[in-house]
Amino acid sequence: MQKRVAGPEIERLIQLLAKLPGLGPRSARRAALHLVKKRESLMQPLTAALEEALDKIVICTTCGNVDTSDPCTICSDPRRDGHVIIVVEDVSDLWAMERASAINAKYHVLGGTLSPLDGVGPSDLNIATLVDRVRNGGVREVILAVNATVDGQTTAHYITDLLAGTEVRVTRLAHGVPVGGELDYLDEGTITAAIRSRTTF
Amino acid sequence: MQKRVAGPEIERLIQLLAKLPGLGPRSARRAALHLVKKRESLMQPLTAALEEALDKIVICTTCGNVDTSDPCTICSDPRRDGHVIIVVEDVSDLWAMERASAINAKYHVLGGTLSPLDGVGPSDLNIATLVDRVRNGGVREVILAVNATVDGQTTAHYITDLLAGTEVRVTRLAHGVPVGGELDYLDEGTITAAIRSRTTF
Repeated sequence: MQKRVAGPEIERLIQLLAKLPGLGPRSARRAALHLVKKRESLMQPLTAALEEALDKIVICTTCGNVDTSDPCTICSDPRRDGHVIIVVEDVSDLWAMERASAINAKYHVLGGTLSPLDGVGPSDLNIATLVDRVRNGGVREVILAVNATVDGQTTAHYITDLLAGTEVRVTRLAHGVPVGGELDYLDEGTITAAIRSRTTF
Repeated sequence: MQKRVAGPEIERLIQLLAKLPGLGPRSARRAALHLVKKRESLMQPLTAALEEALDKIVICTTCGNVDTSDPCTICSDPRRDGHVIIVVEDVSDLWAMERASAINAKYHVLGGTLSPLDGVGPSDLNIATLVDRVRNGGVREVILAVNATVDGQTTAHYITDLLAGTEVRVTRLAHGVPVGGELDYLDEGTITAAIRSRTTF
C-alpha cells in the first residue's frame, strides 16, 4: 500500500513535470522538490515566466517560428534576405541555425518530417504554406536544412518534387566531417560523403 | 553575432527551466518548445499546478516534510507510531521510505548532511528540532536513515553523540546486498558488510 505522504497539489506538479522531455518520474520528483525549496528564487519566477509565455507566445503563421509576434521577428525583419528560405524540421533547428549565424535568411518550420509508419503525411506538416510562399514569388533559393535521417531525406525529396515546376533553386546542407570531429568516431557514410565532396586545400 | 530570434519571454522561460535539476541549457530549450507546442495539454495545466503549489505548499515546522498543511499529513496522523522517528537527509528520501512502506513511523528531515568543506554546520540542518522532539518525550527509537556516504555517516555519528544522554535508542539502516543486486557489480565494502551481517538461511 502506497501511503499518502504529500498533498495532491505536489503529486500533480510532479506528474506534469514528468511530461517534459528529459524528465522522468524520478527527476520530476527532484525538480518539484527543488522548486519547493527555491520558492522565491525559482518557483515564483518560473510561474510568472510561464504565465507570461502563455499570454504572449504565438506561432508565426508565415514560417511556423515561435515568437511573441505574428509575423515573427525574423519574418518581419527587413534586413533579412527574403530571397532565401531555410526549411527546418523544428523550431529547435531554427535556433541552432541562428546560433551558427551562418546566413541571414528567412525560415520555414515544417513541424516534423514525413513518416508514413507514424501516420505523418504532407497535410500534417507546413508544406503547403511553403509552396505558397514560393509561388507568391520573391524566393530564389530554398535550402533544405532537414536532419540527415531517413525521414528527413524523404521529406527533402518530397519538397524538391513539389517545387520542381517553379523557378526556385533547391539546395541541401553539405555532408562531411563535423568541425572538430575525429575520423575514428565517424560512420562510413559520412567519411564517404566527405571524400566525395573533398575540396582543394 | 547572436541574432535575436525569439522574444525575451521564451528566453527567460528557458533560463529558468535550465535551473531545474536534470535539465541543462539544451534540454531546457527542448522543454520550452515542448511546452509551447503542448500549450493546452501541458503548459496551461503546469502553470496552474505551479500557481496552486505556490499558494498551498508549506514546509512542516515539526519534521521538515513538504505538504499542504503544517503540521504535515504524517505528523498529524494518529495512526502513525510516534515512538519511532526516521531521520532522513531530504524529502526525497522520506518519499523513498514511504514508497517502500516498510514501517509506519514518523519522520525528521535534516535538509542535508554536515559538510565542513561546504560550510554546512549543525545550525544549517534541522538537528536542534530533532533533539527537541526527542527531549519532549514519547520517542523510543531514532532510526538514522541517512545515505551511506561519508557526509551521511558523519552526520549520523554527530546525531548519535547528541542523543547519547537521552533514553532513546539510536539505530541505523542495515548494510548489505541490494535485493535483486548482483555480487559482481557490488563494491568490496558492501560485500564485506553483507558477510559480517550474514543471517541463517
